[in-house]
Amino acid sequence: MLPAVEDIHDAALAERLQRRIDRKTKPLGALGRIEPLALRLGLILGSEAPRLAHPQMLVCAADHGLAARGVSAYPSDVTWQMVENFLAGGAAVSVLARQHGLALTVVDCGVRHEFQPRPGLVDRRIAPGTADASQGPAMTPAQRDRAIANGREVVRVLPGNALLLGEMGIGSTSAASLLLARLSGRPVEDCTGSGTGLDAGGVRRKTAVLREVLARHAGAVEPLDALAAFGGFEVATLVGAVLQAAGERRVIVVDGFITSAAVLVAARLRPYVLQRCVFAHRSGERGHGLMLEQLGAEPLLDLGLRLGEGSGAALAWPLLVSAGAVLDEMASFESAGVADRIAP
Amino acid sequence: MLPAVEDIHDAALAERLQRRIDRKTKPLGALGRIEPLALRLGLILGSEAPRLAHPQMLVCAADHGLAARGVSAYPSDVTWQMVENFLAGGAAVSVLARQHGLALTVVDCGVRHEFQPRPGLVDRRIAPGTADASQGPAMTPAQRDRAIANGREVVRVLPGNALLLGEMGIGSTSAASLLLARLSGRPVEDCTGSGTGLDAGGVRRKTAVLREVLARHAGAVEPLDALAAFGGFEVATLVGAVLQAAGERRVIVVDGFITSAAVLVAARLRPYVLQRCVFAHRSGERGHGLMLEQLGAEPLLDLGLRLGEGSGAALAWPLLVSAGAVLDEMASFESAGVADRIAP
Repeated sequence: MLPAVEDIHDAALAERLQRRIDRKTKPLGALGRIEPLALRLGLILGSEAPRLAHPQMLVCAADHGLAARGVSAYPSDVTWQMVENFLAGGAAVSVLARQHGLALTVVDCGVRHEFQPRPGLVDRRIAPGTADASQGPAMTPAQRDRAIANGREVVRVLPGNALLLGEMGIGSTSAASLLLARLSGRPVEDCTGSGTGLDAGGVRRKTAVLREVLARHAGAVEPLDALAAFGGFEVATLVGAVLQAAGERRVIVVDGFITSAAVLVAARLRPYVLQRCVFAHRSGERGHGLMLEQLGAEPLLDLGLRLGEGSGAALAWPLLVSAGAVLDEMASFESAGVADRIAP
Repeated sequence: MLPAVEDIHDAALAERLQRRIDRKTKPLGALGRIEPLALRLGLILGSEAPRLAHPQMLVCAADHGLAARGVSAYPSDVTWQMVENFLAGGAAVSVLARQHGLALTVVDCGVRHEFQPRPGLVDRRIAPGTADASQGPAMTPAQRDRAIANGREVVRVLPGNALLLGEMGIGSTSAASLLLARLSGRPVEDCTGSGTGLDAGGVRRKTAVLREVLARHAGAVEPLDALAAFGGFEVATLVGAVLQAAGERRVIVVDGFITSAAVLVAARLRPYVLQRCVFAHRSGERGHGLMLEQLGAEPLLDLGLRLGEGSGAALAWPLLVSAGAVLDEMASFESAGVADRIAP
């Protein structure tokens, strides 16, 4: 079990925030989960009137050596093609980031492709994809540490106080499933889904490959060892990004299965990161429910999304803005002259 | 059972829309419920690239004679005080409408108060509140017909192609529960909740009052008869608004328990209205689940909201915008040069 998120909880601020929410012109609790969300934003940003500023969508991309084992319905080339699509503005996350005014940064953490440099693309490439985890560790300890440091550095220079997490990488659900299975101790079949769209036979074959990988790295039980064993570079970079953002008290908006795996690793290293996270949605990917359970997370949306890219984080973003606006802009019973006495 | 919504379904357009969605750069179905939402928007607006324009938040307000029987935790004066709050910009719906660029119109359908005329407030007052439904019909047939006509007229002059429904009225959950119980044939206790926050004893007393009202109007089984018997003026005005908006093929965004009751009445009169509705959320109010079941509706959000005002419709609105943007702006596999062949 993870330590309780109350570890560094500011009880006095929480009480002031709750009183402020309760005096708004609405029955107690009538805004449902928007109310604890507002409370959380206030606690993360350390303010009774938290203002979300300059939200950043960070999409980390990399390739996976394990993809050679046929664990995905799509070829590895789709990773770089989708990075081009993100930058050209045609991917789901591009469209949604535009809609919500999210600055989009794509990080090449280790894609098997040579990109032309351009605005919005940050080169933090470790290698052209991880090694095949069924043959040996996906990355060396030095590569892992470099990727985590990269994530920290990328976030450090981003403006604003909110970070939305996204990712791209053919084979990435395999890495996330492996991390989940190892860190939760649950059977690999409970952690493994169809990813981009494997059929039942494909999922069976994928599960068999993952079982073999887990057996090969039976000693990789510590979070950082598991991360090196299973990958990927984008997950490791996201681990660094999460640690940095949490340390800076940014609001971290977690997307789906793969970004949750990065949060799982980060939270095992620094449990307080969970206090700074808002979980956007419950993914349609098998294993995400178990992942959320491990994280003690109750996501905002449940729309059967299973795209990744940060698309779910972007879709949930306006709910965070609403929670902040409710806290900041709604009148109180006193200021609006509304009666709040309770009849029999 | 309601007739199937396929009644006036355009199968050819649906097929073109589905193909368009399936060629977007994402695995099939990976955007979950955003995909059928995009399809629905396209079908309502009759376009492969539907564009939501000038969305209108319509908040209908009125008082309920039955409130004198102690069915609410708040006094009737809160109705007019909240109307003032809507107009002053301090209520939840005011804040959320501002956030999302929704034009806010408040209709006085029969509030027990004299308002000063001002921008944003439309006077369509039938009477200062309905009559006490435990003593006789909440309204006369002429009042009901006038309120429905008012709703039609109000919508007719609103710009845009999307109508978000909201309401305010102390006692309104009682009217909605009565309509649900009568039109569904289900026991009143399955249809009755705590409204603005009754405790268990309060809910028991409310349920007893509603049972008495149902017995008094045992003959009011047709939708329009039930509407006159139980009220309220805001519900009847919303019925007219829904019929008008559906006839004009506007996208109708349904909020919570009370606006759903108006849709239930409208759909019993003209089943095709359901084709034009998007249900925003599953309310925390007991009875809304049953209501949604009666309507065959699967709402977008499940956040425990139970405020009304249109607040849930406003919170769900960006998901509709996203669905439209995905259809309109996302690249296809062909246009983005992304591989979509399926590996083994």
